[in-house]
Order: sequence, then structure tokens, then C-alpha cells
Amino acid sequence: MNKHIYIFSPSGAVRDKLAFKRGVERLRAQGHQVEIDEAALKSHMRFAGDDDTRLEAIHRAAASGADLAMISRGGYGLTRILDRIRYPALGRAVARGLRFVGHSDFTALQLALLARTGAVSWAGPALTADFGGEEEPDDIMQACFDDLLLGQGEGTGWRLGRDDPMPTRRARAGEAAEPLQAWSVRDAVLWGGNLAVLSSMVGTPFLPDVRGGVLFVEDVNEHPYRVERMLTQLLHAGILGRQKALVLGQFSNYTLVPHDRNFRLATVVAWLRAQLKIPVFTQLPFGHVPTKVLLPVGAKVQFAVENREALLFWGHIVTGGTEHHHHGHPHDDHDHDHAH
Amino acid sequence: MNKHIYIFSPSGAVRDKLAFKRGVERLRAQGHQVEIDEAALKSHMRFAGDDDTRLEAIHRAAASGADLAMISRGGYGLTRILDRIRYPALGRAVARGLRFVGHSDFTALQLALLARTGAVSWAGPALTADFGGEEEPDDIMQACFDDLLLGQGEGTGWRLGRDDPMPTRRARAGEAAEPLQAWSVRDAVLWGGNLAVLSSMVGTPFLPDVRGGVLFVEDVNEHPYRVERMLTQLLHAGILGRQKALVLGQFSNYTLVPHDRNFRLATVVAWLRAQLKIPVFTQLPFGHVPTKVLLPVGAKVQFAVENREALLFWGHIVTGGTEHHHHGHPHDDHDHDHAH
Repeated sequence: MNKHIYIFSPSGAVRDKLAFKRGVERLRAQGHQVEIDEAALKSHMRFAGDDDTRLEAIHRAAASGADLAMISRGGYGLTRILDRIRYPALGRAVARGLRFVGHSDFTALQLALLARTGAVSWAGPALTADFGGEEEPDDIMQACFDDLLLGQGEGTGWRLGRDDPMPTRRARAGEAAEPLQAWSVRDAVLWGGNLAVLSSMVGTPFLPDVRGGVLFVEDVNEHPYRVERMLTQLLHAGILGRQKALVLGQFSNYTLVPHDRNFRLATVVAWLRAQLKIPVFTQLPFGHVPTKVLLPVGAKVQFAVENREALLFWGHIVTGGTEHHHHGHPHDDHDHDHAH
Repeated sequence: MNKHIYIFSPSGAVRDKLAFKRGVERLRAQGHQVEIDEAALKSHMRFAGDDDTRLEAIHRAAASGADLAMISRGGYGLTRILDRIRYPALGRAVARGLRFVGHSDFTALQLALLARTGAVSWAGPALTADFGGEEEPDDIMQACFDDLLLGQGEGTGWRLGRDDPMPTRRARAGEAAEPLQAWSVRDAVLWGGNLAVLSSMVGTPFLPDVRGGVLFVEDVNEHPYRVERMLTQLLHAGILGRQKALVLGQFSNYTLVPHDRNFRLATVVAWLRAQLKIPVFTQLPFGHVPTKVLLPVGAKVQFAVENREALLFWGHIVTGGTEHHHHGHPHDDHDHDHAH
């Protein structure tokens, strides 16, 4: 496969130059033409160059004519320049076929881009973490990545958490609510990303006002009480209640302390379910972990759950502009109950 | 002094029973009648009892008839029950003369109380951290605490940071903006508290919509990049721009890493000043540190700055209900420039 991949650094400075080099070499070995932004390895304090430098890098990525613009790494640096990004230029680049891909701090740009232009971007790998390791890239991530570049990916599936309850059928008067055997929603906007970044955008004009969406979140280095506090913000701001489902990805690398006693992530999820009428599903393979699927942020999806399997379909989406076209999908023969 | 002090635990479980005991004994030795809420030492996971228990404790504190209701400690636990607190009952208790005092997680209750009722509460000490140590309580904190109980406190002052720039006089066409010799604002609502807690309330109905206020924030264990991300949320949400001044208290106990290079808290403050038209002052003696003043959250204040000294006056405030009366103040003879 010979695609044009543009590597740029909108957030933290790349310190692990070896991982950067390995990542570039791996992508080249896969047949791609890898173009490295001139500021990709810049360093200014903890940032990959000062604000102007990173802004220019973002705009160069948009103008690159590449098939894919992938971040070198996350870190921190996008929220503080959200008010200076030229979103229409990014939206036009996406309409021309550019796919932005990344995660972590990149969530800020992805959500702001969605809010300002409706353009779809991809939650997925970053160069150093996902292609630059000593070991080969994760198989599932690589397969999803290849699908995206080939324009073949139409969805993703995963096994739900064992304790994930099925949504219940709306009970009639006098009847007990009964769990559905299967559940699905259509025409829901998929959105989300890193929870800390997303929650830091609540109340700002850069968070898209998605109604009836499927929200996914993940995080790293965040204690469950902080995850709960962030989710509580989304709850009290009315954001969770306006979605059709909440999907939890991977929450990794936090440390419980003796003070927690039995307070843990599962406690947070159980509490959240008690607060919400919408279903909360877990185990989405996405986050600060090697095995991550690629997800179109801002695309209309069908989301179906049956037999402990979750399936997200985005079919042949149009990734640019404010319109999303969803042409059929391969599972119309399923006999799903529709809760909404 | 013989005042009635009610100790309750709305947030984290008290693990340091010795500090709790020392704190109670110190207050008793100061002549006070200390009443301990029946659930003050409860423990449920990381919380001081389950949600119902902590809610009942808050409502018992409101109904206690005490002069002061002080938290045992902060931690985490209030944001998740903000939708279940009976604010009118708390507001009526404040109108009858009860003063709520605390900090850290307690910020959530203080801001929600202000949003819902306009009632004033006090940012100040917590029992274990501020009265329960092996050493005697901090002199300044103790003096402010005594002033509050005696109804004598009318304000507080501190020396500004060396690099704090004075606000500039609005320049006329063709003139350079010139720093003012003195600056003050009147009738500004003082509000704020812990930055992480406050920022986790943005976009929710529990954050008061204060216009033309003086906002103060502090935090502990938060890296400067996280402080910046939180302040950026307040900036992009328009909250900072609607205030007359931002006052930074103490940011303590964070760890810089080699990756930061020269990125530090001072960098954050400098960046913030470049984004804002309102003045940003530092060095307020308030936070997760022994030396803390007591501040009336929700009270109307006069805030004056001259000769590197900051002075916050709240005069004889009425602490209950939605009306705030501000009867004169001792510095009307100052010749201040008024920027607003």
C-alpha cells in the first residue's frame, strides 16, 4: 500500500527520537510515503515548539494533500491554542480526503473541529506510541489502520464487559422492566476521546453540542475518583443524558491507594449507571493501550448490542463537511429491538 | 470565646483519628462548645459514609443552630451529591447566622450554595489539617478564624508577587498604556476556591454565574500544565473575562519533571495574563497550606491594590439570603484609580 502520511506534532515535544524514527521507518516499510512536518521534532518547554509553531504545523498538515495526517504524540498543548486554529481550512482538507488521526490531547482538536465544521476525524494511533515501539505494532490496531487507508473499514466490534447490563424495554404500567435481548440505535453521531481533555472543554464553544449521540471516553493516569468527577461534570451539564449511549474505553495506569478501600473503577461505573437512563457499555478497545481500534469522531453510526457483543457501524461515511451520509449497512437483517 | 462549632464530614473519610481528636481538643481548649456530627467518623469506601449519610450530615449541620459548621476534612465526595442537597435549608441556616467553613472539596458545596441561594459561606480551615496537627495552628489562620467567630473580620491583605503587573489605565488614542499607581474595584462578588473542583463544575447548574466578580483559586497536587488546562477552560468558557480580577492563591505539592524544561507555574501565569484583559494577582495566602486567610465566598467586596499590597474588604456583610449589604469600609480616604 502506498499512501501519503503526514506526521506532525501539535502537542507535546517528542523526546523519544528513537521511537519517532522507528515509527517512520515502520510506516515506510509498509510502503507508505511518509512526510515529516518541519517542526515535528521541535521543542519549546514541554511543547513541540511554541504556540505559533504548533499552529503552523496543524495548518501545514491540513494543506499537505496527504491521505492521512497523524500526530507524533499527545501530551499537552492543544487546548490553549483552540481559539487560533483555522477550522474551515481543516474542514476543507477533510472534505478533500485528508484523514486526521490521533488520540489523547488530540481529542481537543478533533472535538473543536467537529463543533466548528462537522468534519470527521479519526480517534486512533499516534506515531511514537503505536508504531515506534521496540515490538511490532499491535495487530488489531494495524488492521484497523490499514482498513482506514484502504477505505475499507466499515465498523468495529468488541466483547462487552461481563457485568454490562442490557438496556431494558420501557416497562408498561404494572410490569417490571425487562432486559432486551438485543438493542441498537441508528443515525447517532459517534464522538468522544480522552475524558480529561473532553471534560476540560465543557462550557466552551469548542465542545460540540451532540444530541442523541454515542459518546466514548478513555483515560490514562487518572484515579477512578477523578474519572467519576469528570463523568459527574458531563452528567450535571446534561451531556450524558442527551446521548443514546455511553461507551467506556480503557482506563489505564492509575494507582489505587489504601484510602480507597473498595472504591474502584467498577464502583464508578455502577454509580454512573444508577444516575443514568442511557446504557453504559464498557471494554471498548480504545485508549492509552496498544490494542486500539480506529473510530470516526463525528460520523453517524449504527450501534448494536447482542449476545454480549457490541458492533459499531459507520458504513461508507462521507468524512468531510457538515453532512454525513450513511449508505445502508451490512446488518439490516438483524432483528434488533430499538430502545429509541 | 465560647462559640458553638459543629464538625461534620461531607467528603472523604477521616483516617487520621488522632488529628481529628487533637483538632476537637484544641477548639475546646479555646473555649468553644464543639459538637461532633454523629457520622463525622464514618467510612464507606473512600467516603465519610455513603451518599445518604453525608447528605444527612450536611443537613444536620444546617439544622444544628451552631455559630460555625466546619468540615473535618476535604477529599472527594461532594460533586456527586450536589443534585441532592437541600440548598434552601442551608441558605436559611446561613440567614440565621450559621457560617459554613472549609476548603478543597468543600468548594463544590460553597459554589452550589451561592448559585442556588446567594448565601455566603467561608473559604477557610478544615478541622484535621488546620487544627489537628502536632504543631499549634497557624497564627494568621487562627487570628482570621477568631475574627470570624467574633464577627470582627472586615477584610484581609497580603503582599503581591514581585512580578505582578499593575493594571494599566485605558490608553487614549496615540498614548501608551500606563500602569496605574493604585487600582480598586467595588461591589464585586468574591468567589472561588479549589480550581480542580471549580473547573469540574463548569457547564453545570451548580456553578454560580458571577459577573464582575473577584475570582480566587488554589490547588494542590496539580501540575502546572493541568492548572493551565483548567484556567484555559475558565478562559474559553468566558468566565475569566466576566470577572474584574483573578487572584491566585497557593499552588502546592506538585512535581515538575525533566520534560517540562522551563515550563512552570510562572509560565502559566504569564501566558494567562497575555490572554486576559483583567488583572491577575498572585500570592493570596489561601490554599492547601497552613497559612490561610478566611474569605467570604459570595460576599460583595472592595478589592484594592497599591504599593504591592492587596486589600480585600468585605466590611459588615450580611451573610444570608441573596442580598448583600456593604456598609462603608475603613479606607474611603484612599485616592484610588478606578479601572472599572
